[in-house]
Amino acid sequence: MQKKLDAITDMNIDFAQWYTDVVKKSEMVDYAPIKGCVIYRPYGFKVWELIQKELDNMFKKVDIENVYMPLFIPQHMLQKEKDHIEGFAPEVALVTSGGDENLEEPLCVRPTSEVLFCHHFSNIIQSYRDLPIKYNQWCSVVRWEKTTRPFLRTTEFLWQEGHTAHETEIEADGVAKQMLDIYTTLFKDVLAIPVVRGRKSEKEKFAGAVTTYTIESIMKDGKALQSATSHNLGNGFGKTFDITFTDKNNNLNYVYQSSWGASTRMIGAVIMVHGDNNGLVLPPKIAPIQVVIVPINQNKDGVLETATNIENSLENFRTKIDVRDKTPGFKFSDWEMKGVPIRIEIGPKDIAENKCVLVTRYSGEKQTVSLENIAKTIEQKLEEINISMYNNAKKSLNEKTHIATTMDEFENILNNDPGFIKAMWCESKVCEEKIKEKTAASTRCLPEEQEKLSDTCIFCGDTAKVMAVFAKSY
Amino acid sequence: MQKKLDAITDMNIDFAQWYTDVVKKSEMVDYAPIKGCVIYRPYGFKVWELIQKELDNMFKKVDIENVYMPLFIPQHMLQKEKDHIEGFAPEVALVTSGGDENLEEPLCVRPTSEVLFCHHFSNIIQSYRDLPIKYNQWCSVVRWEKTTRPFLRTTEFLWQEGHTAHETEIEADGVAKQMLDIYTTLFKDVLAIPVVRGRKSEKEKFAGAVTTYTIESIMKDGKALQSATSHNLGNGFGKTFDITFTDKNNNLNYVYQSSWGASTRMIGAVIMVHGDNNGLVLPPKIAPIQVVIVPINQNKDGVLETATNIENSLENFRTKIDVRDKTPGFKFSDWEMKGVPIRIEIGPKDIAENKCVLVTRYSGEKQTVSLENIAKTIEQKLEEINISMYNNAKKSLNEKTHIATTMDEFENILNNDPGFIKAMWCESKVCEEKIKEKTAASTRCLPEEQEKLSDTCIFCGDTAKVMAVFAKSY
Repeated sequence: MQKKLDAITDMNIDFAQWYTDVVKKSEMVDYAPIKGCVIYRPYGFKVWELIQKELDNMFKKVDIENVYMPLFIPQHMLQKEKDHIEGFAPEVALVTSGGDENLEEPLCVRPTSEVLFCHHFSNIIQSYRDLPIKYNQWCSVVRWEKTTRPFLRTTEFLWQEGHTAHETEIEADGVAKQMLDIYTTLFKDVLAIPVVRGRKSEKEKFAGAVTTYTIESIMKDGKALQSATSHNLGNGFGKTFDITFTDKNNNLNYVYQSSWGASTRMIGAVIMVHGDNNGLVLPPKIAPIQVVIVPINQNKDGVLETATNIENSLENFRTKIDVRDKTPGFKFSDWEMKGVPIRIEIGPKDIAENKCVLVTRYSGEKQTVSLENIAKTIEQKLEEINISMYNNAKKSLNEKTHIATTMDEFENILNNDPGFIKAMWCESKVCEEKIKEKTAASTRCLPEEQEKLSDTCIFCGDTAKVMAVFAKSY
Repeated sequence: MQKKLDAITDMNIDFAQWYTDVVKKSEMVDYAPIKGCVIYRPYGFKVWELIQKELDNMFKKVDIENVYMPLFIPQHMLQKEKDHIEGFAPEVALVTSGGDENLEEPLCVRPTSEVLFCHHFSNIIQSYRDLPIKYNQWCSVVRWEKTTRPFLRTTEFLWQEGHTAHETEIEADGVAKQMLDIYTTLFKDVLAIPVVRGRKSEKEKFAGAVTTYTIESIMKDGKALQSATSHNLGNGFGKTFDITFTDKNNNLNYVYQSSWGASTRMIGAVIMVHGDNNGLVLPPKIAPIQVVIVPINQNKDGVLETATNIENSLENFRTKIDVRDKTPGFKFSDWEMKGVPIRIEIGPKDIAENKCVLVTRYSGEKQTVSLENIAKTIEQKLEEINISMYNNAKKSLNEKTHIATTMDEFENILNNDPGFIKAMWCESKVCEEKIKEKTAASTRCLPEEQEKLSDTCIFCGDTAKVMAVFAKSY
């Protein structure tokens, strides 16, 4: 055991270093020779592919179609929408030469693709019959960042961005909310992560949006992570990019739009919600390997044969048998670091009894189970793990959710047991900014589930308009 | 019929315009507001996703793992490998500012990712135990092109690039050849396209490769299309990027590498090999819609009900029922333009007889078939279509493959019945360049299946070393 604990930093001593150790030692990523960029190694990229597959299936069930827009946006187009460019200009990378010639107009490497979708929509939409349009694309985007961390904030990152166009704002807003539901389901059922749902404050909303909906999760260090967002864009982009349609009464109207996105940040959330001092802990649905079989005394007669038989009977799961010339202890640590949900240990004694040892990664629980119907046992266990991991994370979220009615309480919580803080707020930007200045905590969202904790704003004492959730965040 | 033929240019009159009409009218792509870039619309992107899925499965069967490398390459790294940069420098797009600040060193938008893989390999390879490494990535790359055409040549294009590292050159070369086999199988079984396999001449090979293997296909206008390539990179990149490993005898060696790629060009090949004057003709495995059901007299009792029953019984296929308020004739043309392999027509008369009309897109053949076991009928028909489309394309390739033993013959062929020309060659670059200057035809490959057509080079009359296949190309 000692050996393992030496291998990575203790999360209670230095959470940031623990995170860095885990992403490197689990072989999810490697640093790239470009500032702020990472290499997604096979293990990390497979996790992304599994998330993609689940989310893409959810999109397809609600008739969202995949498309692909260019990597580049002409600079003048990005500047068209005033709020949008104010939000993104400071982060844009510019291509100024191509094929040894200087470009007449620089091209922005897309930080997000609203303006390209708008341009395309204006070409293909004429009538209400062409609506709604519901598109998504999987791609990478680039935002120049000063400080970067794998998965959480990188100069280039992988994501999906959805873009829709509608006849009415109600419809656009409905889709924005529907997508928040889909993200919430993904987080619960696939990532085993509970979230707080709500809308962003005016200050925190997406550049150009009417309303930004968000799901926020809480990490083991008590910091919040904005996990996915969905925007009701109103008809502002429609007006700027002249996206019109003739309605049923033959009147010309601007379309209403939504956009929504989730990124490789989700992997960061998985690591920081479920991980422990032995490394990654992956929920079964996104684990590249769901079951690892470690033979004990693998050179003894029949051991490898039985291990292979087990592997064959588990063909419906992502199963790996580890036959490396290493000690079982080394293998245990290695697969714990990689967060494999179930380990099966099988040795001569187990074989004699037609049994094997089943170790659950998230809990460390060891059971001896029969080799009869092992596939059924594993199937049930994987389902159970997903639910238990979610319940544990939910318990942790509840424990890390506090109420403050005075700034003293607010600061005490942040100093002693950081997490989400529910507090009443007057909704003024001034109070929001002053709280952030004083405590480094920002409004994460104005949650759907409102409570009345007091009558007055926690900061200024004026009449409160809303309960906000505050936290320090990634 | 007349209406359809008016809709797109006749391919025999203007093949290039026919191509442009087809990609636009089938709604595969739209032009983007960035020179040389296109928007992949849902129908075009779905074709790409289906090709991706097939090829990715083939890769996974031979233990290739997906990874993701950054979009950017520091300029000095791309300049490290002399041949490589000579090949790519003229096409590179440069990022010179990020986040409102000028960069100290410009970043190249990847034209291909050899150097990033090399950098990563040098970090993760120590011993022969770490080898082989077999990676692939799906991404977009950027090459500044003067003249562009959707799918065939665009500034940004989508592709996969595989990169492997090995102990020996034999092994690296073996994988390069294995990947050519996989591409050949993909073209035959999935795209229904026959190819000529061979290696590239010294002049035409990949910048930095020892040997480039290629598959070449022939379009309906007699021009060749380089369809996928695979490179034995030797240990040149290994030496340049210092990728070493300790072998079994504890000696330090450089790794040998391969790389291989196929792109959205494949969709261009599908269009130009199978398309006709009514539009696209898609092979079943990559058709977003495999079967379209067009109800006749859809307002008559029972028609839509029966059509829906047929749709339900075809749930194992990508099936669509077209209930738009349009005439059947309009719908027929529309789905012909989109290349849907099978159309089912179902009207009151058919229903009375428990039959439907089945129309095969590629041949135009009309059959009346029983509604009993319609799923089985469709399954067999789709298989048959794939084989027949391949056989037709193979016949066409054979007819377009000529032999020339004199330059007069060579030029006659190009003027009267262009296609592949087999001719003997001395392998000198001078002859190759002069032939290209004179005829615009280049060496497509030195085919695996060699024949001895004569003793002397078709151009200079010196002793011939090899039979080459020449053609004008895209």
